[in-house]
Amino acid sequence: MQWCDNDYFQKVGEDFVQWYYNQFDNTNRMELVNLYAEGATLTWEGTLFSGREAIAGKLTGMPFQQIKHIITDHDIQPTFDKSILVMVFGQLKADNDLPLAFHQVFMLKPLNGNWVCTNDVFRLGLHNIPVESQ
Amino acid sequence: MQWCDNDYFQKVGEDFVQWYYNQFDNTNRMELVNLYAEGATLTWEGTLFSGREAIAGKLTGMPFQQIKHIITDHDIQPTFDKSILVMVFGQLKADNDLPLAFHQVFMLKPLNGNWVCTNDVFRLGLHNIPVESQ
Repeated sequence: MQWCDNDYFQKVGEDFVQWYYNQFDNTNRMELVNLYAEGATLTWEGTLFSGREAIAGKLTGMPFQQIKHIITDHDIQPTFDKSILVMVFGQLKADNDLPLAFHQVFMLKPLNGNWVCTNDVFRLGLHNIPVESQ
Repeated sequence: MQWCDNDYFQKVGEDFVQWYYNQFDNTNRMELVNLYAEGATLTWEGTLFSGREAIAGKLTGMPFQQIKHIITDHDIQPTFDKSILVMVFGQLKADNDLPLAFHQVFMLKPLNGNWVCTNDVFRLGLHNIPVESQ
């Protein structure tokens, strides 16, 4: 498949989403770090983590024992630079906490024959409930 | 300011957010189209609009008379390709409807001396309310 083929970047994005959250929930989160580029940037709930080492520290230092992500939907677009923009939204449940809405954006880029994540922005939905709906 | 200066891309992103939603709410939405690159992509609630003409049709064809966006927060990151990734979340109120949460992602790229939007993904938060919280 070629880059300009809509199916191609959709498939890369969908495979990434499936792999990422399966890895996050079911295996060693340390392995997630391998998919980030060396100079990648993660913004987690408004806090910036620059570089793979800082991202590794954040991902593996989270305090819960168990987590499960349920993906509601995702949007996938190609960019002008032949990267892929992925926006995911869904719900997560950590340990015995109530489920929380979240949304997360990834930028995937082909580097040295592999797709790597260069940008990751994560936010919980709990900041974003309209006052009149609460 | 240089590209590598954190303040620079933060300022470009913040200026864009302020300008975009002010323009959306208070002036002719048709003018928004000028900030999109010719081959830009918009995904609006899961539906893809490719190119400036399609985006213009979507933005100006929305059925409400009045709209107001209230921005809760935004996250801004530089990308490897010297573009800027902006994730915005907040609430919007159209006409007399109840306010709704939304989140929106923009990719901004410098083209011919101007910052233009190459990617835009918009989602309302109403799909994403955890069942146990409803």
